[in-house]
Amino acid sequence: MKFKRTERVGAIVKILSDNPNQIFTLSYFTTQFNAAKSTISEDLLVVKNVFEKLRLGKVVTISGAAGGVKYIPRTSDEENQKFLGEVCERIKNEGRVLSGGFLYLIDLIYDPNIVYKIGKIFASYIDYSEADYIVTMETKGIPMALMTAKATNLPLVIIRKDIKVSEGPTLSMTYVTGNSQKVETMSLPRKAIQPGSKVIIIDDFMRGGGTIKGMMDLMNEFNAEVVGTGVFISTKTPEKKLVDDWVSLIELDIQGEDIIVNPNLASLGDE
Amino acid sequence: MKFKRTERVGAIVKILSDNPNQIFTLSYFTTQFNAAKSTISEDLLVVKNVFEKLRLGKVVTISGAAGGVKYIPRTSDEENQKFLGEVCERIKNEGRVLSGGFLYLIDLIYDPNIVYKIGKIFASYIDYSEADYIVTMETKGIPMALMTAKATNLPLVIIRKDIKVSEGPTLSMTYVTGNSQKVETMSLPRKAIQPGSKVIIIDDFMRGGGTIKGMMDLMNEFNAEVVGTGVFISTKTPEKKLVDDWVSLIELDIQGEDIIVNPNLASLGDE
Repeated sequence: MKFKRTERVGAIVKILSDNPNQIFTLSYFTTQFNAAKSTISEDLLVVKNVFEKLRLGKVVTISGAAGGVKYIPRTSDEENQKFLGEVCERIKNEGRVLSGGFLYLIDLIYDPNIVYKIGKIFASYIDYSEADYIVTMETKGIPMALMTAKATNLPLVIIRKDIKVSEGPTLSMTYVTGNSQKVETMSLPRKAIQPGSKVIIIDDFMRGGGTIKGMMDLMNEFNAEVVGTGVFISTKTPEKKLVDDWVSLIELDIQGEDIIVNPNLASLGDE
Repeated sequence: MKFKRTERVGAIVKILSDNPNQIFTLSYFTTQFNAAKSTISEDLLVVKNVFEKLRLGKVVTISGAAGGVKYIPRTSDEENQKFLGEVCERIKNEGRVLSGGFLYLIDLIYDPNIVYKIGKIFASYIDYSEADYIVTMETKGIPMALMTAKATNLPLVIIRKDIKVSEGPTLSMTYVTGNSQKVETMSLPRKAIQPGSKVIIIDDFMRGGGTIKGMMDLMNEFNAEVVGTGVFISTKTPEKKLVDDWVSLIELDIQGEDIIVNPNLASLGDE
């Protein structure tokens, strides 16, 4: 089958966009589109332009034997502020405060389009160049962690709260939640993480940081190093968290019936 | 900013592909690309060609006041057979049998690229034209259910196993798992599903069908109708499941140390 330039460009955009951070060789495209290398090279210049003009991220060329092109997703400051601003409005204005001061957020943090964008923002703000896994703890952080894993092309690891014997030998430990000061259990199969790995932790919510701290301790037991942490919402108080370095997209402060909620991202300094 | 045709086509492919089943108006594109309606209409013809030639699904035009174009993802038989065949090989050949006859599968079913494809296959095989939600139960089905939700542009609902008072008024019930005949609890906040809704159930594994049956009963309590069920792996035995209509992508039969595992999809009859 023969393709016109416009068709090849569209098709290459589709392939790269569906597979962020995966390398595609020139030969892959020459075979796919029955075209010469020089033709595909020219197509790729157009494709690079599309991503840059629309500020969708970068298409980079990797040289060498395992070389090719790959798409690195990156969101723009303008897009992030607009998106997070809209999410904050929805948090504030939709009658989400439950008795006990809890916020009903699961319709937002399970929304596939919202978590898709959150995943791309985490992939823009957290350096994952050396990371081997995206790690989260069940349940509410899973959708955004999965989308972060998709954007970064890293495997997802889910820490369980109960001990699942059906997953083989499992490492379990206890931790204290920052919120209720309850002792909880977390567990992960031995096979889930290779010793010596580097991981990025993603979670939906951080108050005191006890859960994230527990996940870090568990990673330590796996001889894995945490090289980045991203949370969707962090609370203003307590100001001092149990963990040090983290990226949070939204800051939340509940004072009685007032919900103060704002985007919390520093500028990426759009290049 | 001005765009060339090749750039516009690339950009439109990116926008549609990132947002399956979302309608974009002609005006959206004319504003985005600073181009005339006639120009965008011609671009869209090229875009439709790209998706059809590569068998990536369909770009359809919706007429009327709320009209525009939307992308409907659809996988081809050839692609499905190849993908599921490779997954079956990995299930068979990677030393996954654990003591107790369990299979270690979480690296596969948490893999973002694998579940991305599973989501598109479910969206190709299950009629979601009238559905309002994708429903799953924590934990292992969540990644593939989320990707199905993304492909179909439907909100995701996650049934919890414990009762979370922090989500407001919650409906809970018990069910009997088909496998161990244990009584388990499932719960879902009242706000999670509107009465009168239609839902599609997605889960990773079905043996006797007890869990799926439980989810159906819970949906009944919400006055919601189950209009489709998709499971990633179903076991050959017991042949009689507790539920009737379901799509399964892979059939599994463990006989002692032998794992017999095969793609289980009928042909879609590629159009």
